[in-house]
Amino acid sequence: MNQSTRFLNACNRQPVDATPVWLMRQAGRYMAEYRALRERYSILELIKTPDLAAEVTLQPIRAFNLDAAIIFADILTLLESLGLHLEFVKGDGPVIRNPVRSSADVAALTLRPPEEVLGFTLEAIRLVRRELDGKIPLIGFSGAPFTLASYAIEGGGSRHYTLAKGLMYHQPAVWHAFMSKLAEAVGLYLRAQAEAGAQVLQMFDSWVGSLSPADYREYVLPHSRRAIELAKGNTDIPVIHFGTGTAGMLPLIKEAGGDIIGVDWRIDLAEAWDRLGSDVAVQGNLDPVVLYAPIPEIKKQAARILDSVKGRSGHIFNLGHGILQHTPVEHVAALVDFVHEYTAEGYHQ
Amino acid sequence: MNQSTRFLNACNRQPVDATPVWLMRQAGRYMAEYRALRERYSILELIKTPDLAAEVTLQPIRAFNLDAAIIFADILTLLESLGLHLEFVKGDGPVIRNPVRSSADVAALTLRPPEEVLGFTLEAIRLVRRELDGKIPLIGFSGAPFTLASYAIEGGGSRHYTLAKGLMYHQPAVWHAFMSKLAEAVGLYLRAQAEAGAQVLQMFDSWVGSLSPADYREYVLPHSRRAIELAKGNTDIPVIHFGTGTAGMLPLIKEAGGDIIGVDWRIDLAEAWDRLGSDVAVQGNLDPVVLYAPIPEIKKQAARILDSVKGRSGHIFNLGHGILQHTPVEHVAALVDFVHEYTAEGYHQ
Repeated sequence: MNQSTRFLNACNRQPVDATPVWLMRQAGRYMAEYRALRERYSILELIKTPDLAAEVTLQPIRAFNLDAAIIFADILTLLESLGLHLEFVKGDGPVIRNPVRSSADVAALTLRPPEEVLGFTLEAIRLVRRELDGKIPLIGFSGAPFTLASYAIEGGGSRHYTLAKGLMYHQPAVWHAFMSKLAEAVGLYLRAQAEAGAQVLQMFDSWVGSLSPADYREYVLPHSRRAIELAKGNTDIPVIHFGTGTAGMLPLIKEAGGDIIGVDWRIDLAEAWDRLGSDVAVQGNLDPVVLYAPIPEIKKQAARILDSVKGRSGHIFNLGHGILQHTPVEHVAALVDFVHEYTAEGYHQ
Repeated sequence: MNQSTRFLNACNRQPVDATPVWLMRQAGRYMAEYRALRERYSILELIKTPDLAAEVTLQPIRAFNLDAAIIFADILTLLESLGLHLEFVKGDGPVIRNPVRSSADVAALTLRPPEEVLGFTLEAIRLVRRELDGKIPLIGFSGAPFTLASYAIEGGGSRHYTLAKGLMYHQPAVWHAFMSKLAEAVGLYLRAQAEAGAQVLQMFDSWVGSLSPADYREYVLPHSRRAIELAKGNTDIPVIHFGTGTAGMLPLIKEAGGDIIGVDWRIDLAEAWDRLGSDVAVQGNLDPVVLYAPIPEIKKQAARILDSVKGRSGHIFNLGHGILQHTPVEHVAALVDFVHEYTAEGYHQ
């Protein structure tokens, strides 16, 4: 076996020669190559120029022995494609100047074909697939309806999600109309990425851990399920369903869909898998801050995770959330190599 | 039965006539009476003037039909008592000007008798007990060692806790020395509050949900346990052990100690209680943002929580974290009354 099949086999809970590993936000500011490009281009320029997005996607692939690439993009371009005005403000992160707060705001959002409004990412996918030439698979991704709705309603990041939850509780019909539109947009965008060449799809519900399980079930689950169904269409492309802070609602995340469930570090991975059941694969779950630790501590923590799920099929090693900005690149290299070495012999038999 | 015993009975998993309810941060900016005082005094002046702290403690007791009072104080005065310079900066929240980053910083911290350095809170406890005159019990509290260590190391609030975790991973001996000192300080402070008249103690580990269960076990649990042991001394005073984001490590929170485990809204309360076992009481767990919702939604969500644990002894109704700043007071009143009405007849038989 080799790297061309390792990640896909794990997605399908098939035998592997070593545990596959990739890292959320593996392309980004912790890499000098990326910072060099960012001196010349804004984030949105990198994302919207297919050649540059392809180049950024490949930077970590050249630097580390990763088992999958993930297309360089941002979850918020989808909101922009619906008519929201997105800006990346230095120090403040993404800001949306015309947030969604009313029934009229929802009605004003227009769903257009992904090829028309998000074609730059689809083209980048085609370029990367050509470059990778089958050596490792490429992941496409989108934000999940709830996380996108939160950004769109709050107008940016949030601590308590009072406006997003406020819309839920005060205007449930508007909430559901908005979420239905987002589910459609997310599903079609993911489907288009698959058609452009993405071999696995990940749906990021990064902020879903702000919800109670009961609110998740009522206000979010049906829309996440719809998005995943549309993404798969009548194909069997593996879908990774990722969230943080989901330790108290893993069965609901699974109920919403996904062949692989991504979990953060706030729960033991084996315990998470027990709660999910062996009919899904799992992805995770090293605390990204551990990558700041000395290399022996990184290896100790990676080994703990690997030991805990030894003997099960379908583990994809990853962090519990994205790589942090000041992560030393040599620590990333050490982690990736360690996961392969530790699981290459004896572990998977 | 009446309100003098309802809360304490629930703490001890004894029969009650209705489910007791109090709310974290029940004294605070959402109340006009509090804002009026804050126009004349800083937060630290309110905390350090026993008459004023007692007055603020009693404001929500006069306004709502609560089953317990909690002394008005702040978890960070304990850090100040050890020699750290604490300031409340408008917009930024608490800031510590001389954060703890090294072995020398830890050595410089001096443990002094609580009566000497935190006497204002102990005196406020004595005043409030006198005013309450046995009508409802009074809760004393402290931050837990980890949450205090995080503030002290980061120098304020934090998103990723990279400095706190950095000290853990890079200088574990310094970390443990600091945590030992904090455990001692927390334990003695809580004990002193009990001796001054607090009838129940709560230890807030608000940021503990940033940790993996494995890191909690290795770097935090022994120190939280030590603090709780010291707090109880050879008495049987009930201790509430509260954290947020703990859905993935509830058995470890229990292992660290506490007669009542406080949980946030990110897990169903009945499921949390199942994982903890019936030999502890539980406190929680309405999402504080729900108090912004229309009153029928508040009642629906409170009823869901109450229904889920019906038939079990030892539930204290509370939010999953503190009341938010713009919460309408009439919603607080409606919630408190609803919990009593819903559980007054039939529910507890």
